[in-house]
Amino acid sequence: MRTFFLLVICTLVSAVTFSQKEDSLMIRRIADEILLNSKAYDNLRYLTKQIGGRLAGSSGMVKAEKWGYQTMQDNGADKAWLQECMVPHWVRGGKDEVTFRGATTKKLDVIALGNSMGSGPKGITAGVVEVRSFDDLETKKDLVKGKIVFYNYKFNPTYVGTFLSYRDAGQYRGQGPSRAAKYGAVAAIVRSMSHSVDNNPHTGAMRYDSLYPKIPAVAIGLRDADWLSETLAKGKGNIHLKTNGKFLPDTIGHNVIGELKGTEFPDEIITIGGHLDSWDNCEGAHDDGAGCVQTIEVMRALKAAGYKPKRTIRFVLFANEENGLRGGNKYADEAKAKNEKHIFAIESDAGGFTPRSLGFTVSDEQFKKVMAWKELIAPYGCSEFVKGGGGADIGPLNRALGTPTGSLNPDSQRYFDVHHARSDVFEAVNKRELELGAVNIAAIIYLIDKYGL
Amino acid sequence: MRTFFLLVICTLVSAVTFSQKEDSLMIRRIADEILLNSKAYDNLRYLTKQIGGRLAGSSGMVKAEKWGYQTMQDNGADKAWLQECMVPHWVRGGKDEVTFRGATTKKLDVIALGNSMGSGPKGITAGVVEVRSFDDLETKKDLVKGKIVFYNYKFNPTYVGTFLSYRDAGQYRGQGPSRAAKYGAVAAIVRSMSHSVDNNPHTGAMRYDSLYPKIPAVAIGLRDADWLSETLAKGKGNIHLKTNGKFLPDTIGHNVIGELKGTEFPDEIITIGGHLDSWDNCEGAHDDGAGCVQTIEVMRALKAAGYKPKRTIRFVLFANEENGLRGGNKYADEAKAKNEKHIFAIESDAGGFTPRSLGFTVSDEQFKKVMAWKELIAPYGCSEFVKGGGGADIGPLNRALGTPTGSLNPDSQRYFDVHHARSDVFEAVNKRELELGAVNIAAIIYLIDKYGL
Repeated sequence: MRTFFLLVICTLVSAVTFSQKEDSLMIRRIADEILLNSKAYDNLRYLTKQIGGRLAGSSGMVKAEKWGYQTMQDNGADKAWLQECMVPHWVRGGKDEVTFRGATTKKLDVIALGNSMGSGPKGITAGVVEVRSFDDLETKKDLVKGKIVFYNYKFNPTYVGTFLSYRDAGQYRGQGPSRAAKYGAVAAIVRSMSHSVDNNPHTGAMRYDSLYPKIPAVAIGLRDADWLSETLAKGKGNIHLKTNGKFLPDTIGHNVIGELKGTEFPDEIITIGGHLDSWDNCEGAHDDGAGCVQTIEVMRALKAAGYKPKRTIRFVLFANEENGLRGGNKYADEAKAKNEKHIFAIESDAGGFTPRSLGFTVSDEQFKKVMAWKELIAPYGCSEFVKGGGGADIGPLNRALGTPTGSLNPDSQRYFDVHHARSDVFEAVNKRELELGAVNIAAIIYLIDKYGL
Repeated sequence: MRTFFLLVICTLVSAVTFSQKEDSLMIRRIADEILLNSKAYDNLRYLTKQIGGRLAGSSGMVKAEKWGYQTMQDNGADKAWLQECMVPHWVRGGKDEVTFRGATTKKLDVIALGNSMGSGPKGITAGVVEVRSFDDLETKKDLVKGKIVFYNYKFNPTYVGTFLSYRDAGQYRGQGPSRAAKYGAVAAIVRSMSHSVDNNPHTGAMRYDSLYPKIPAVAIGLRDADWLSETLAKGKGNIHLKTNGKFLPDTIGHNVIGELKGTEFPDEIITIGGHLDSWDNCEGAHDDGAGCVQTIEVMRALKAAGYKPKRTIRFVLFANEENGLRGGNKYADEAKAKNEKHIFAIESDAGGFTPRSLGFTVSDEQFKKVMAWKELIAPYGCSEFVKGGGGADIGPLNRALGTPTGSLNPDSQRYFDVHHARSDVFEAVNKRELELGAVNIAAIIYLIDKYGL
């Protein structure tokens, strides 16, 4: 009996060892395919340099969708299609201008916040009230009427992970304008959410509270924010602000989807994605051209490495993440309507930087299963597996169907240097870092496809 | 008796918990000091932009030593001094030129290897033999006489850690010229050790085997290496090569040393260092300006955070790492001559990139001790502690005195894009990544200082 158990254990152990060896070899093969033959960097060059900015509703969006559909086919999709959804169509409408006029006159480097309304053709001229926080706004609320509120809340450098600083500061961009309008402010200027060393302003979505007037709002570069603060401390001055933003009617956009059909469990779906839209003031290289070309590269590499997925893997370039999330919502709505079985979704939307960890929003049992694969993936960069992971575009799938989600978490130190700024260009992306991101996504997808979750 | 033991255990546990909490707070304080008030980035700007290249023996070296001595004092050293050593004085001597003349004529982007001898004022004109490896050289040895050997060995992209690719390819730069000269070659061209996407050639030290003629040797940019290989495959051509390298007599250089005196065990010394010299063709920002300014920053931050070290901590900017290691040797020789007790030395010489791990060349027992601190440091970036760590400059200390050594291991993906190339400039360094490197070094130094090793 004891011999029998020993035999069973030995058989099990060697089966586990064998499959681990097999997995290790397959991941190595996929990684080599990417590191030797990747098309991700060239694809990113095309998307950023030939197409460029691609905000929802823009002509860049249309070009990018066409490119995405063709590139899915060229890179081995069994099937590719466009999933239609209505998207908002905000336009900047012209050059954003802010000039300070006091003891000295200075043009400030600004950019209107996404979704914000223009100042009208004559612009606005008013005095400025600087506030350091919402608490500070409350103490100064009686001074704000008829004035421009300048939110000078600093991106906190003591958080090591920069997404924490972003979460902390982001409320000033999102809610700042309406909270100032509540007290009668006529416009808002928000310090850019970044600790870059340059002066490029960083845009991003804001939303108006329908209770208050929709006042114009801009982000200001960090050096100019410091200059303005110092200048205001020394003496008075007015600001002339002119922006031109407006919404055109909603228009048709698309999620771009490529698929590798599952050979054993075709009804079980795994999704990998990034978002195809970007802000209009940049090439959207890190945000999120990187996630898009990594998504396509994972598909290409799985196919080129000769891997036949058991489950159906969908590669999705989502529409309209930046100012509406209509693509992510559409994808989830259709999945629910069709009663699809989505077993896992992962997103790459934190830049094409060197991979550090994979995050998972899964059950404890699933996390335990995933953790057993860590040593297989660690050699490629994601040496940590952490609880909590997903992305804006796959959030709706998680909420609608309870789909477990994950994220590629690259190093975050440089992301907010370029995020939503004109410096988010192809040249800011490192070829190897981009490719290693694809390697790590491919590895976890391979394991989840093979063993389920 | 049982109660007694329980009491002892409880006391021990709470003492450990208390000191962990205390350590966590002190590391947080040091980290905040660096992340809020660091001078590392400004110091690096000065070193790279005002001084620039600083190869051993050059006027840049002299300026850098003066700057280092002053900066040590300005940043809180209890004592600072220059430790004299003789250094080699290789000079490039002029512009390195290589022109291919065949069906087309093309100037190639090259740079003479460090320590290589010039071609003479008329240069050399000869045919080219391309080899892919030393094995390939052996098969072609009869074709090489009177020719220029072109080592086209590729930096292997399938190694995830790029230092593995460097170790693999580095032998062609170090030994390639003499191994070609053995078979009568008149010059050598070596493919740059990099997988950058640009065409900048990467220099670095080579050494002649005294048995063979000292033939001229250059590194060639990657695009031109590919072009040359393709062109040679299509037809014949000659190369005209002119370099001007030579050695002047050895001259006086210095290690720059700052010190914080230990309050309890002043005779036990901990060393932190980087090397002050750089190649002449670049600003030496990542290699190793970063390590120098991090070294100084650790000192500044420990002092500013109010930490009084128990042991003596030495902050060293080593001389002549690139082509002689005279600074590192001098430091070890003097330590041995004075019978100093060096308990640990750590080096930062892998670029100012985002920190990923700390490496340790220590006993198993010491490694166990160090591993117990991992969770205190992981939140700042070095989430892995690995066996094996040191640096060229502290190697002699390890060999002479058996001193345990360590290294800061930042992410390696971008290092060889700029290493020894004209692109190793201040702008290639990210402020936050640089500072976080200093944070991680400061944390491990604090712990080793407090608890010994």
